[in-house]
Amino acid sequence: MKQLENLIDRIIERVNINLRETGMDVGPYIRNALQLNHLVKFYSIYGFSPQHPVLFSFRRSNLAGSYFFGKCTVDLSVVYKSDIRGDELKKRGEVYPFQGSQISLRDDEVIRIRDACLIKTLVHNHSHDPEDLETFLIQNTVALHYANIHGAPVEGCFLGPFSTVDLTTLTDCIIGTFAYVQVGELSHQQVEPGKIWVKSKDVFDFSYCFPKKVLDNYITLEPDKKPRGIFIDFVDARKADFQEIFDVVNLKASISVPSNASVSRYALVRGESHISENVLIAQRAYLENAWMGKGANAQENCYIIDSRLEGNNVTAHGATIIHAKLGKNVFVGFNSFLRGTPDHKLTIGKGSIIAPHTIIDLDEPLDIPAGYLVWGYIRNKKDLKKHNISAQELSRVKGKFTRGAMKFQGSGAKFVKAFQHRIDHILEANGAYFAGKNNKGHAQTEQDIAFNIIHPYSKGRLKGLYPSIDIRP
Amino acid sequence: MKQLENLIDRIIERVNINLRETGMDVGPYIRNALQLNHLVKFYSIYGFSPQHPVLFSFRRSNLAGSYFFGKCTVDLSVVYKSDIRGDELKKRGEVYPFQGSQISLRDDEVIRIRDACLIKTLVHNHSHDPEDLETFLIQNTVALHYANIHGAPVEGCFLGPFSTVDLTTLTDCIIGTFAYVQVGELSHQQVEPGKIWVKSKDVFDFSYCFPKKVLDNYITLEPDKKPRGIFIDFVDARKADFQEIFDVVNLKASISVPSNASVSRYALVRGESHISENVLIAQRAYLENAWMGKGANAQENCYIIDSRLEGNNVTAHGATIIHAKLGKNVFVGFNSFLRGTPDHKLTIGKGSIIAPHTIIDLDEPLDIPAGYLVWGYIRNKKDLKKHNISAQELSRVKGKFTRGAMKFQGSGAKFVKAFQHRIDHILEANGAYFAGKNNKGHAQTEQDIAFNIIHPYSKGRLKGLYPSIDIRP
Repeated sequence: MKQLENLIDRIIERVNINLRETGMDVGPYIRNALQLNHLVKFYSIYGFSPQHPVLFSFRRSNLAGSYFFGKCTVDLSVVYKSDIRGDELKKRGEVYPFQGSQISLRDDEVIRIRDACLIKTLVHNHSHDPEDLETFLIQNTVALHYANIHGAPVEGCFLGPFSTVDLTTLTDCIIGTFAYVQVGELSHQQVEPGKIWVKSKDVFDFSYCFPKKVLDNYITLEPDKKPRGIFIDFVDARKADFQEIFDVVNLKASISVPSNASVSRYALVRGESHISENVLIAQRAYLENAWMGKGANAQENCYIIDSRLEGNNVTAHGATIIHAKLGKNVFVGFNSFLRGTPDHKLTIGKGSIIAPHTIIDLDEPLDIPAGYLVWGYIRNKKDLKKHNISAQELSRVKGKFTRGAMKFQGSGAKFVKAFQHRIDHILEANGAYFAGKNNKGHAQTEQDIAFNIIHPYSKGRLKGLYPSIDIRP
Repeated sequence: MKQLENLIDRIIERVNINLRETGMDVGPYIRNALQLNHLVKFYSIYGFSPQHPVLFSFRRSNLAGSYFFGKCTVDLSVVYKSDIRGDELKKRGEVYPFQGSQISLRDDEVIRIRDACLIKTLVHNHSHDPEDLETFLIQNTVALHYANIHGAPVEGCFLGPFSTVDLTTLTDCIIGTFAYVQVGELSHQQVEPGKIWVKSKDVFDFSYCFPKKVLDNYITLEPDKKPRGIFIDFVDARKADFQEIFDVVNLKASISVPSNASVSRYALVRGESHISENVLIAQRAYLENAWMGKGANAQENCYIIDSRLEGNNVTAHGATIIHAKLGKNVFVGFNSFLRGTPDHKLTIGKGSIIAPHTIIDLDEPLDIPAGYLVWGYIRNKKDLKKHNISAQELSRVKGKFTRGAMKFQGSGAKFVKAFQHRIDHILEANGAYFAGKNNKGHAQTEQDIAFNIIHPYSKGRLKGLYPSIDIRP
């Protein structure tokens, strides 16, 4: 195990150098997140399909990591429990339009994680950075439990647990616990825990921050300790159930799936669940008594329990939905935690948007009308008032606007439009609009992923490390 | 599946060119051995350990294949259900003594299978060919069900079902069904079905041939048909049991194993079985009510059922032992089939040698005394008489000698000595003599093989093919 320990030391050193101006030492966090004795027992699964150019290439020494999908190359890197979906990588010759230019790709785009240490990170790339379209770089970045890196390169950063970096090119930043940033570009900054921040240059700027006391109850991180709180307890309680589906090489489908829908072999589906047409259930999604209407999707690490989603619903990475009824086109953003109970049901009307990192944890039944945007921390009707606005009202906003702790500035109309445009893109990419032969998306193209199961060395100096592996079509 | 079909065509063409002077067309045999629909469902397991330099490198297009172990590179090749054990590969700088010369290896030895098509072949290399110590080449060779290639390179050959090429460098040969050759070198020859042939230049020459009628009952091959007979039925009846242990990613040990012994995670052990010290149970070995004494081994594809082996026993690749009691140091050669019944038990005395490819299928109890060599086809005491000789008597033979259908020429003493020397080497290599820290062998070094499970593409043109894969330490 000596080499594995050396590797971790080297990575900590590199990340600390990137973050030197903050004085942060990521060592205690990394060492706590990586239990060496456990790592040795893990195995990894690597998905590939004929639709996606395959190149997994782990160099030097690597440990765990599961579900690379599409091109990837990793160097001296700890990649642990990470989904790294490269299924939206651009291909050679493809033309990327940017501000009037037509940039042609000289090579297939690859995800290139260098000297880096990701811990439990999902990277679902769809890069919007025109500066290097061929490489999606993630270097010297540490991402703690259930942090999401999504759609843009990230360098020299520390991502707290349950934080999300969305469509944002990040350099040398610290993103606090449960913080969400979608701001295009961010450099040498610290984002405080629980801050939800959506900004598009001078066009609009939306922000909200969870009260520390509330956040601590759900998720909190202290140096030298593991992250703890309701989020962690919730996930941990379901870990063992997942283990069962990872223990078997070929799993028989537990539910009937229409031919134009896709349920990952590594999703867990139980109880009275239903899969309609064009539905996508991703790896590590958890469904229990979940009714999924046509075109709905359940992305990686999301939990949908005792709930009904009418159709074209997006349940983004890491979102949780319990005892809820969601109308058509309801969007639930990253890492949102919506918890009704049998007595306190949650209903959300058609087309409403639950902002990423929203916590709705009910102590009474709650009904969110159609066409609303909701954010923040909500336990009941009273809370809702300060944490929602109708799309109509928001569209009329120009300049400054506040509601409760939410601050907005800029064009409400453009904010609403951008959000709706994005949801539409997500549905399209995931295959919700598939009809006959047209509009294929992930639900149609990811039905037949094959998986390789890779074990680390079980003995000796290399114990816990994986042999370097190169996979080519 | 188009590319898989193309690949098979190309390989057939290449093998036929090698065998052109015989007029043989291997096409019908290969196409029958490879059921494309099944191939698509298979997955492969690849073993590696810190003791053995890892380099699996499949180029272009490959299909199944399980349990590569140690360095290997494969090119445009169908490798299907093959164990290819490279755990005795020589290392760079190692010195190989040959007829007074001390040949130093310029590089690690690799197994290099080129353009080739192996079908269900075990290759356990320990090359004795001084001409190219760095490459163990197997090119354009087709090996049907349970054929063994063992310890030497083989080029442009066709190996019938249950045939064995042992320590013999082979070029452009056809080895008939259930034939066994251990003759050092063989070029442009056809060996008839059922021929057992052990030859060392002018020193000795042992041969026996099974009557066609007897052989057909056990194993027979016709063009355009699958091999059939008792051997095939026996193996097929146990296939489903093996499937269960391949279906699980991490299998719990089913039996207690001493710390200096090794039971492969892909062996099947059931009933009242017992593993003593220094025992080696290899991948795909089948044990049922098997008592394995100290230093005994059960090699790949062997079956030991309702039997007791006292210790230091070799059960070579593909051998079957049922309702038998074997004294210490009894050796059972490749693909031998020893079948007693509850009423017709077989006992074999200390140090006796059952020649490779011996069939003992009892219709009465049989007792083989200590210190004998046995070969051929035996159903009872009467048969035994024509198919055995004591080591003592054989050692006195000089020149020509026959017994039954067995023909011998040369030095009996040297033949006996060579055989005993080899058995001793096998026991040593397998770790039977391990004591404290000395004499480590496979039983001690192969306890901690880790396995990668690789799936083929499940869809599209590449269906049934594996992505090319490179694994490095």
